[in-house]
Amino acid sequence: MNFVTVTVDQRISHIYLDRGKSNALDQQMIEELRQTIIEARENPAIEGIILHGKADFFSAGLDLVALYEYNEDEVRRFWHTFLDFVRTLVSFDKPAVAAISGHSPAGGCVVAICCDYRIMAQGDYIIGLNEIPVGLIVPESIFQLYGFWLGQARAYRYLLEGKLLNPRDALEVGLVDEVVDIKSIRTTAERQIGKYTQYEQNAWRQSKRHLRRSLIAQFEADQTDAIEALLKRWWSPATRTILKAIIDNLKGGK
Amino acid sequence: MNFVTVTVDQRISHIYLDRGKSNALDQQMIEELRQTIIEARENPAIEGIILHGKADFFSAGLDLVALYEYNEDEVRRFWHTFLDFVRTLVSFDKPAVAAISGHSPAGGCVVAICCDYRIMAQGDYIIGLNEIPVGLIVPESIFQLYGFWLGQARAYRYLLEGKLLNPRDALEVGLVDEVVDIKSIRTTAERQIGKYTQYEQNAWRQSKRHLRRSLIAQFEADQTDAIEALLKRWWSPATRTILKAIIDNLKGGK
Amino acid sequence: MNFVTVTVDQRISHIYLDRGKSNALDQQMIEELRQTIIEARENPAIEGIILHGKADFFSAGLDLVALYEYNEDEVRRFWHTFLDFVRTLVSFDKPAVAAISGHSPAGGCVVAICCDYRIMAQGDYIIGLNEIPVGLIVPESIFQLYGFWLGQARAYRYLLEGKLLNPRDALEVGLVDEVVDIKSIRTTAERQIGKYTQYEQNAWRQSKRHLRRSLIAQFEADQTDAIEALLKRWWSPATRTILKAIIDNLKGGK
Repeated sequence: MNFVTVTVDQRISHIYLDRGKSNALDQQMIEELRQTIIEARENPAIEGIILHGKADFFSAGLDLVALYEYNEDEVRRFWHTFLDFVRTLVSFDKPAVAAISGHSPAGGCVVAICCDYRIMAQGDYIIGLNEIPVGLIVPESIFQLYGFWLGQARAYRYLLEGKLLNPRDALEVGLVDEVVDIKSIRTTAERQIGKYTQYEQNAWRQSKRHLRRSLIAQFEADQTDAIEALLKRWWSPATRTILKAIIDNLKGGK
Repeated sequence: MNFVTVTVDQRISHIYLDRGKSNALDQQMIEELRQTIIEARENPAIEGIILHGKADFFSAGLDLVALYEYNEDEVRRFWHTFLDFVRTLVSFDKPAVAAISGHSPAGGCVVAICCDYRIMAQGDYIIGLNEIPVGLIVPESIFQLYGFWLGQARAYRYLLEGKLLNPRDALEVGLVDEVVDIKSIRTTAERQIGKYTQYEQNAWRQSKRHLRRSLIAQFEADQTDAIEALLKRWWSPATRTILKAIIDNLKGGK
Repeated sequence: MNFVTVTVDQRISHIYLDRGKSNALDQQMIEELRQTIIEARENPAIEGIILHGKADFFSAGLDLVALYEYNEDEVRRFWHTFLDFVRTLVSFDKPAVAAISGHSPAGGCVVAICCDYRIMAQGDYIIGLNEIPVGLIVPESIFQLYGFWLGQARAYRYLLEGKLLNPRDALEVGLVDEVVDIKSIRTTAERQIGKYTQYEQNAWRQSKRHLRRSLIAQFEADQTDAIEALLKRWWSPATRTILKAIIDNLKGGK
């Protein structure tokens, strides 16, 4: 693994996102994350996972600079891998907590909302799904996942405006569960995992699967149509122009 | 068109409801509204719609005085047309904003909640779904639409009590998005449409369709059973008596 | 009937839970409750029901002391009867109000959330679904019923932590509709039923069925898989140990 580091402490798997300054997600990192989740699922010695970011970034979302250079096959493969990773994390039945160490827009937010509990570092950070401003199409499955936490009305409003929230607002609407000083984020995550693992774990896990049944069904449904619509948009001149502008801006800001 | 006026300004179609004092909805007005929505959908020069009412009334809902005189075929046709109009507006994929200039109960509220955003004039006005007090049956599709904005629990409670809300309460529970002085309602609606149309419009529209997929499915399902149940109730002596009392009261108030 | 008492007053059926100190639910009591609901449904002279508990207990939930002694067939039969009772109460189309006179955890809470309206006595009481701490699996249908009132996000969080609420918190999140002095609980329940029965009752009842259609479908779906999973857990050494500890604690507290 190049972009994901795992340590195990007291039967909890600590999964550290570790790619560049901002944990932007490319094909390889998504594959590594997916593999890490599967290993935590299959390993009977692991009772839960905590996902960690790095200073100021949980994950900046998809690596648009890398994706912009992908060819048609590579982009198609990326989206299939990404949604398959999301399906894997949504279906993960042991406790999963996101320790959101900083910014977490778009794909970073998707990773976080797959988990059972979100703790965000206080600070001048953003979280939310802003696919539409980038010219990307939101699949129904992602809306249902966002709406699971925010309610349909709020998820609908936020998505159509591409709204990004600061930690305080995210807490108020239930997008995150706690906002703490970055120094306490790991302890807080461990304490929350402990609230889940204190109970009989077979009952807990099977209940979690029941509670997520309709969410899981959304991601187990064939995503081909959603991905093809998304790809058509991806290669349109309008979206290429937006992506190029975003990338130039990112590079200028380096 | 006799009861609907349309003007186009900066690629936005302004649709004015214009029938009598209170914009009560009869067969012809619903047909005109439905036709207007289809034209806005098909016209590539139109980027969004704003629905406007008149002084003190967005729409008083169904024209019970007219409907009371309809014969069996006419009433059946009316309900099919009405639910087909709702399906058309729920499925409309460009931005749609309701500028609720005044009272908006029952059918008036249904029109408003098909839109993406609702701005209500402040004042002593009412909005909400009060079918049950009138002796009408609420179809599941209308409940799902109301619950999309209010959440299921609140939609359930409000429907079973036939609750009507003032603008302030409607704002608090998310039935409307903003309450403004009537003088600013058009400007506010235009500003909101601008928030939507600033983004790549294909991505926006396809995302809106995805976000509404289960709502649209509710209205695309065969409504015949719901309508037949409603008609059976419509012609029952109990509901005829309620309707007659409401109509006498309306006429007395003229 | 040994454990359920019924009196009729002004066309309302008052159903009193009456078993031991805490109204713990065993096979016979569930059968009697189910039969009582069916009779209220079939009797055209009855316009609605109010469910009453006793001092300090609406219902303590399932009678774990009794269930612990049931053999395999008896436990299987119990769960089928229990979910069939829930289906019957969820599908009941006349107004149903729960007058929650005291504690109402687990199965007691399930009974209450089948109703249209909940009034809870103020005091040091608890309400909520705490199946997971007891080592039981939550079926999807129960989650959907809990989420109908709390929203999915809150229902998910509360279930996975086995959260129990006091009346004040239950009111704030909408798990109950009113908190009143125990002396006013019956009057309050009657007033609320009156708000429902003032309307044309065929329209009210058919609307209630429409509004609950997806909930009812959850309970009409075959529950065999959910029950078999639950039974497997029930007979596991881990859950037996938890149950034994709870029972010893209950007996010690007597």
